[in-house]
Amino acid sequence: MRRIYVSNTNSRQYRNKPDLSDFFEPKAIAIIGSFRKGFFGGYVVVKSLLKAGYSGRIYPINPAYTATQGLKVYPSIAAVQQDIDLAIIMINAQGVPSIIRECGNKGIRAIILVSDGFAERSNEGARLQNEIVTLSRQLGIRIIGPNTAGIVNTSNGLNPCPYDAGYYRLQQGSIAICSQTGMTNPQAFPFPHLHLGISNICDFGNKCDVDECDVLEYLEGDPRTNVISMYLEGISDSQRFLSISKRVAPKKPILVLKSGITPEGARASASHTGAIAADDRLFQAMCRQAGVIRLESFEEVFEIPKIFATQPLPKGNRLGIITYTGAIAVLALDEGAHYGLIPANLTAETVDLLNGIFPGLGTVPVDIGPMSVVVKNLADLYPQIIEAVILDENVDALLNIMWADHSGLTKEMCLKTYKQLKICHTKPVATWLYGPDTGKVAELAENLEDLRFPVFSDLKTSIKALGLAYKYVQINKESLL
Amino acid sequence: MRRIYVSNTNSRQYRNKPDLSDFFEPKAIAIIGSFRKGFFGGYVVVKSLLKAGYSGRIYPINPAYTATQGLKVYPSIAAVQQDIDLAIIMINAQGVPSIIRECGNKGIRAIILVSDGFAERSNEGARLQNEIVTLSRQLGIRIIGPNTAGIVNTSNGLNPCPYDAGYYRLQQGSIAICSQTGMTNPQAFPFPHLHLGISNICDFGNKCDVDECDVLEYLEGDPRTNVISMYLEGISDSQRFLSISKRVAPKKPILVLKSGITPEGARASASHTGAIAADDRLFQAMCRQAGVIRLESFEEVFEIPKIFATQPLPKGNRLGIITYTGAIAVLALDEGAHYGLIPANLTAETVDLLNGIFPGLGTVPVDIGPMSVVVKNLADLYPQIIEAVILDENVDALLNIMWADHSGLTKEMCLKTYKQLKICHTKPVATWLYGPDTGKVAELAENLEDLRFPVFSDLKTSIKALGLAYKYVQINKESLL
Repeated sequence: MRRIYVSNTNSRQYRNKPDLSDFFEPKAIAIIGSFRKGFFGGYVVVKSLLKAGYSGRIYPINPAYTATQGLKVYPSIAAVQQDIDLAIIMINAQGVPSIIRECGNKGIRAIILVSDGFAERSNEGARLQNEIVTLSRQLGIRIIGPNTAGIVNTSNGLNPCPYDAGYYRLQQGSIAICSQTGMTNPQAFPFPHLHLGISNICDFGNKCDVDECDVLEYLEGDPRTNVISMYLEGISDSQRFLSISKRVAPKKPILVLKSGITPEGARASASHTGAIAADDRLFQAMCRQAGVIRLESFEEVFEIPKIFATQPLPKGNRLGIITYTGAIAVLALDEGAHYGLIPANLTAETVDLLNGIFPGLGTVPVDIGPMSVVVKNLADLYPQIIEAVILDENVDALLNIMWADHSGLTKEMCLKTYKQLKICHTKPVATWLYGPDTGKVAELAENLEDLRFPVFSDLKTSIKALGLAYKYVQINKESLL
Repeated sequence: MRRIYVSNTNSRQYRNKPDLSDFFEPKAIAIIGSFRKGFFGGYVVVKSLLKAGYSGRIYPINPAYTATQGLKVYPSIAAVQQDIDLAIIMINAQGVPSIIRECGNKGIRAIILVSDGFAERSNEGARLQNEIVTLSRQLGIRIIGPNTAGIVNTSNGLNPCPYDAGYYRLQQGSIAICSQTGMTNPQAFPFPHLHLGISNICDFGNKCDVDECDVLEYLEGDPRTNVISMYLEGISDSQRFLSISKRVAPKKPILVLKSGITPEGARASASHTGAIAADDRLFQAMCRQAGVIRLESFEEVFEIPKIFATQPLPKGNRLGIITYTGAIAVLALDEGAHYGLIPANLTAETVDLLNGIFPGLGTVPVDIGPMSVVVKNLADLYPQIIEAVILDENVDALLNIMWADHSGLTKEMCLKTYKQLKICHTKPVATWLYGPDTGKVAELAENLEDLRFPVFSDLKTSIKALGLAYKYVQINKESLL
């Protein structure tokens, strides 16, 4: 393979950095902001930390307040006697440099700078951003942001969300989501709806210091994270991204949605986070070389990791499909072909077994639609069918398309089947549900995800998840052998 | 443009047909099936018709029953004294020919054949299908199906759904959905969730007789239908499809999702409805010539028509974007570029007005994120902002990206704004909502769709809807002038 050399647009001297554990595992946090009750600001950060069960110490800082939510508010950072690991700053941009100096004096080495009005806003903002970068490097301080919605670590209740999301605890899991936008943080995305659990979230914001490479390195060493999903508008240091990704991706899949890939998007990106969009072909070549899998839509940032977080990898491209409806299987096979998935040729044994259950059943797609309105004991037969298909030696992965009927009959059968499926679960299963009642469909999806079988929000994504799992296996053939 | 001639694989002699009004506007329906209480069959058809408020007469037919749901069950079709316009047949395939003869004797000229086990099942089934086609032509009977979930007409309560969907009345609207699968019928898709209303639904099933061309011609003359969305596995008569589409599409947009476009999908399609997949390039050329817009996913069959059903067409490709978040606008512009949409250059007047409201606001994407956490009177300013953008002479269409916050504050502002928007509503508006609470997002979406502003389920589809509306305008430039 030809090696691609991408120019390093942000070569930094500052490499004798501490790691990011002060950000993700702080024992004490200072919050510099307003403690007026509302939906944004220091008040919300404290509220969210308390409700998420953050186990460390919390020091609200503001001379205009004395207490908030049962905690003492300190007039200044210096007024706190104990050590502080992380400061979360959410004041006017102009006031930020002096607060950073106070942080430096206190020995704080990690700052989440929520404040906006920097490089994304104006030339004056860009100048101010440069100033704080220089200052923080002098002081040995790392910064996430500015213009960030911050971070989350589900293992220690660290959810200092600056906007009130209405929920505070996130389910623990192995998916890390990193992003150049607050759109992946709790106030924007309904994480309770993503039933499969998160390890960490990080919004880089303007990426004045901590960037995707730093976070990738942190997540590489984070034992809870198994898959990393990212939204990026630009890469700070292409060479470093390439070398870190090459090392991390074979162990933990890296999925990236990159925007600013058209001239129209790139111009908007420049004003959003001040990113300079790289040529997309170069980025694509870099991903190929690094083994990074590209995503194509915002929703996929949350959906595709589910297959990697919960399912074994497929050993090949032979797809079993069980469905209530032929049309959807046809669409699934069309879509699967884009990823090199082919319909499995069931063994003669499975064909006989299935045709014995119902005439014509023994072929992929295995269409249970016709029998479902005829046989009386579908609830007994269905687990046999799914087991026969998934245990077939000619099947590498399974797409299961289920009708969630309004009466709930299917639900009972489905749960029974998936519980049984867990026993012989050595191949990946993706599920797509449909039905006349959105509430019932959502409920069944949650039930299945509680059993750690991912359910996808649309058909294309269901098949794409299996397709990208297969692609990942192909990319990493040697290291997975 | 080069004309494409596609071979006519299904040239029929039988053209002295009645139109489809007996199917969609029957005054009396016979239902031949089982009336055992359950989730499928004649019992459900009667239940659904009664609950949907069907205004015509209903004649259940089965010698084994005397009454169902307050209606007399007749032992045979001949036992009914009054005229019957439509028969819905759901008995074993083998018994179908003799029932068709009875229908013929009674003067019935329209049959919905729900029964399966025909060409989609086996060679024997294909032989039987040929037999009933010959028979029905001799008798002057038209057939929808076999292997169909039937039809819906919302104007007369005609919802003879053979599976119990749990709801029966569908909101009236101008979107017709026609499909070679029951996946677009009420038991599979949650129509109450599609808040914008339907005129007709038709599942062609195996298309042994009535096909997409017949239904297109019916919908052409149906004053309630303004947009036609289709799922097809094959085209019965390419020449006829081309000529009808060319005539209908400039008046009523025709959207088509075609499956079986890969060898894998095509093989599965052959066993699903017995369709022979045409070469996709030929189909694509035919669509281009006919002005038919192709869809790419199953969900789009329901989503894309919403923009055509409710919004004025865009006069050009200059896209205004208002957003709470820069990242999503960048992704939207990337996506819009695929459809030739470009970010609008706001007039100097609008720029001044917006920058007067908040510094830096006066550029597309109009990012209200930074001001939203600073200003106190966003609810007053937001309607001004959206009005300024949509009235700008340099803006042809608007994508509005709204954060549905968990407190509901945004909802109030949003509803107020959209009510005002209706007054100056001469350009298409697509909306995408996001937020931390899926229930609140869904509720706000319903509220906006009640005001006839479509809300799309994901970002890509929001922008694609506007993109395809622009494409439609380009295709039909001459006739729309």
